Amino acid sequence: METSFLGVLGGMGPLATADFLRKLVKKTPADVDQKHIPVLLYGDCTTPDRTASVIGQGPSPLPHLLAGIRFLAAQGARAICIPCNSAHCWYDEMQAASPAPLLHIVKASAAQIHRKNPNAARVGVLSTLGTHRMGIYHDTLTAIGYEVVTPTDHEFETLISPAIAMNKACKWAEAEPLYDEATQRLWDRGAEIVVLGCTEIPFGMERQYRANPMKFVDSNDALVDAALNFFIGAEAAPAAA
Amino acid sequence: METSFLGVLGGMGPLATADFLRKLVKKTPADVDQKHIPVLLYGDCTTPDRTASVIGQGPSPLPHLLAGIRFLAAQGARAICIPCNSAHCWYDEMQAASPAPLLHIVKASAAQIHRKNPNAARVGVLSTLGTHRMGIYHDTLTAIGYEVVTPTDHEFETLISPAIAMNKACKWAEAEPLYDEATQRLWDRGAEIVVLGCTEIPFGMERQYRANPMKFVDSNDALVDAALNFFIGAEAAPAAA
Repeated sequence: METSFLGVLGGMGPLATADFLRKLVKKTPADVDQKHIPVLLYGDCTTPDRTASVIGQGPSPLPHLLAGIRFLAAQGARAICIPCNSAHCWYDEMQAASPAPLLHIVKASAAQIHRKNPNAARVGVLSTLGTHRMGIYHDTLTAIGYEVVTPTDHEFETLISPAIAMNKACKWAEAEPLYDEATQRLWDRGAEIVVLGCTEIPFGMERQYRANPMKFVDSNDALVDAALNFFIGAEAAPAAA
Repeated sequence: METSFLGVLGGMGPLATADFLRKLVKKTPADVDQKHIPVLLYGDCTTPDRTASVIGQGPSPLPHLLAGIRFLAAQGARAICIPCNSAHCWYDEMQAASPAPLLHIVKASAAQIHRKNPNAARVGVLSTLGTHRMGIYHDTLTAIGYEVVTPTDHEFETLISPAIAMNKACKWAEAEPLYDEATQRLWDRGAEIVVLGCTEIPFGMERQYRANPMKFVDSNDALVDAALNFFIGAEAAPAAA
């Protein structure tokens, strides 16, 4: 593309990618098409499942991830967003393959936690089992000084993993009570704000999120803020609500 | 991309592109990411305004359109979708630049008119002024045998063009009464079904569309059907509702 553009490594899942693009457009301060941020999307939804790989039950997604990153970098992307938390388990390898910065979804979520609740000390995280096992939220948030609260192994097995699988099959209404229960357990353990640390989760939590948007951080929305901050400047990225 | 993929020439506007991708995912019969259709999106929202060009008030978008089509074709797209009706004014030039087929949004809409109302004889079309002036709906639909009803010049000036500009500025609620009025005029002139022949229009007509989905054809949704038909086969593309 002749113009400066954002590279998006998507397809993980494809609905989360469309959601990222929609949120990006809606938050961009533009009144005509031409003032929006041009995007090149490499949406390879055949990328192997990230969690299956982390828990040793499937092939590594890394070759697909690197193919996408190298493609976007070779086309001249100024920055790259990956609207999938679990893919960030391979962040270092991907960043090493690109001269353009990869905007980190976990760091973006941490920034939005602070904006939404500057006094929060205990943060709940809902994510895939893969993201949980790799500790990418735990490590980033504890380094900042947060205490992190996550579902138990039993809750992953009976609530989170089935709910995410329902989301992937577009069965959001069926997933909703499972997310409700998983979230309640985090509140019960003292979480003051909960990160939706899987970009598919918001589709099954729309009602909860809308009822109390300041109690949740949607990682896809946080990544949008990071992209706006990069392309337009901090003052243009609206304080999330 | 190693795998077979759909090329999308987008950014016209960028919200319509996100909407196309969302509708594509939601209509695809897949229960895991890997069964969806991989997508490469060239989203150059800096493409000059299509209507401004048609009415002689702006530069031609054709160089941008051809750059995008050539890029997607060179990457090996199996087929290309352009979720912008007005861009189809340059369909022949774009198709000549690509060995891969460009799925035509007006033909896709015509197919959905027939599926939704096989007995319709008179079809209303809401579109940009550019699409209207170039007659791409008129020519395609009259060739099939439909009578076409469109807004008057005065209605374009006072209702449609302002409403589409509001949509582009994300002011959907303000646009809604203008679309309501424009649609009512088409019903009054005997339209039996109305095509939303600009991919931005559905954002300002959600209430009307949801209340009576069989009375409207959303051209973006029709283009999704064409893509599913191409990649998966007619039997997999759900009858629109």
